[in-house]
Amino acid sequence: MTAIPVALEPYRDEHLVAAIESTGGEIAGLDEARVLVWIGTPDDFPELGDHIEWVALKSAGIEDFFDAGLPDDRRIWTNASGFYAENVAEHALALLLAGLRQINTAVVRHWDKERIDTSVRSLHGSTVAIVGAGGIGASLAPRLKACGARVIAVNRSGRDVPGADEVRRASELDGLWGATDHVVLAAPATAETRHLINAETLAALPDHAWIVNVARGPLVDEAALYRALADGVIAGAALDVTDPEPPAEDNPLWSLPNVIITPHVANPASGLTREFAPWLAENLRRFAAGEDLLARVTPDRNY
Amino acid sequence: MTAIPVALEPYRDEHLVAAIESTGGEIAGLDEARVLVWIGTPDDFPELGDHIEWVALKSAGIEDFFDAGLPDDRRIWTNASGFYAENVAEHALALLLAGLRQINTAVVRHWDKERIDTSVRSLHGSTVAIVGAGGIGASLAPRLKACGARVIAVNRSGRDVPGADEVRRASELDGLWGATDHVVLAAPATAETRHLINAETLAALPDHAWIVNVARGPLVDEAALYRALADGVIAGAALDVTDPEPPAEDNPLWSLPNVIITPHVANPASGLTREFAPWLAENLRRFAAGEDLLARVTPDRNY
Repeated sequence: MTAIPVALEPYRDEHLVAAIESTGGEIAGLDEARVLVWIGTPDDFPELGDHIEWVALKSAGIEDFFDAGLPDDRRIWTNASGFYAENVAEHALALLLAGLRQINTAVVRHWDKERIDTSVRSLHGSTVAIVGAGGIGASLAPRLKACGARVIAVNRSGRDVPGADEVRRASELDGLWGATDHVVLAAPATAETRHLINAETLAALPDHAWIVNVARGPLVDEAALYRALADGVIAGAALDVTDPEPPAEDNPLWSLPNVIITPHVANPASGLTREFAPWLAENLRRFAAGEDLLARVTPDRNY
Repeated sequence: MTAIPVALEPYRDEHLVAAIESTGGEIAGLDEARVLVWIGTPDDFPELGDHIEWVALKSAGIEDFFDAGLPDDRRIWTNASGFYAENVAEHALALLLAGLRQINTAVVRHWDKERIDTSVRSLHGSTVAIVGAGGIGASLAPRLKACGARVIAVNRSGRDVPGADEVRRASELDGLWGATDHVVLAAPATAETRHLINAETLAALPDHAWIVNVARGPLVDEAALYRALADGVIAGAALDVTDPEPPAEDNPLWSLPNVIITPHVANPASGLTREFAPWLAENLRRFAAGEDLLARVTPDRNY
């Protein structure tokens, strides 16, 4: 079998070179390649000839590529949706538990037992809704179950999510907010999910609710979130993503004691190509065998 | 069947009154009771007549009762070992994840992405040793497994722990420290476990290790821990217990960025009698039926 020529641009990452070569691929220049693995931003994305049959992007969320007028329909495009699911699910669980167990408070208020003891809540026995239950939701649901929580998964289709106690369609969100204790956002950023968390949905949540966002900042109306947190409408928010990123230094969210903000590290960039490598290898194997690729982008849905 | 007279001292907690009455027990004075449920400290513990057949204590760790010359061998004593296991296991997981995902750093260093991104580590794919794998360990092991970690449980007997990949005897600790990524301490405070974490064991751990203590402060030599953390011998420590409690305001542990200290809230006192109630009811049912009681104290082992 002839080796498949693969361009790896704009730089040659060691983990990905190894993944490409492990599947019988060979690193090639952009002019000779059948596949482009692009690990840069949309800004310096090259013009592509028709000999590029497949573009593999390393991000799970690729709205910035759509904003730049990519991808096209002259070839297959894949993102990395679901490839980092375990890592992101783990970060979501860490954020939720940190909030419930008041670890953020303990870090800044030394042994303030009176305040913390009465504020600690348990994940076990609570209900958690995962909004956007794709790969991250499928990784998160069994983690939450093992922690004794009940899981409501929300996705577009209403299809089963392994480990979830209940699945709801995205079109049936209205009754969700009063039926859950906490919410984890794991949905793509689209026109439909923009400001999914707003003054109305916040008011429908119980006052002990924590919101965790490991998806994209625009899912949350941050002004409404600030008011809800300051007024005790909900108990807290733990955000790995904001809108914009980073938040301004004078963003009032920084001043609230019931907010945890991590700097978009659910899937740390420092380990990103290492985590991406086995998935790229699997997709190259599928490409060589003429099988369907994982995480194929659906241009009309923008994710 | 005659109701069993139960003294509930030094005050009548509503959750426990309900638990006692739900099993057909009746609240009685200390002079008439066959059972004493003691929810106070050892300091004002009463003299007991031989008509008290069983003393139920509400703490899991009762070393202060032993220090006070209690319990005796003229009746059965029970503690609450294992009754709060879920709560404590959840807190241990929260502390470990908070450390690995750098949530403590994110709370104090706003969007310091460069530092945090490269310091975040994953629980999935790592090995965690649970030292003292009783009830807490049995609750924690499946949580860690669901998070993709490998679990080494350490207990006195070497008996199986459900959900653990490997079990070691407490007498075989020497080889443990180099075989694990992280350590959770969940063992009782005894002469044998005092300063189990010391300069030698810290040096044997990998430099990315986090230590979580949800047991008792004296298990850790805090001076040695401070040096190990300051020198980068291990990556961090997350402590719900210290020695003494609270730590002095000038304790140097407070100044380290890689330490998380929560104020002994793994099992929050504010919810303690509520969590204790169903277990007390089960033990009263067993007492009435002449069955073995849960969490019976073994006086010669001091726990």
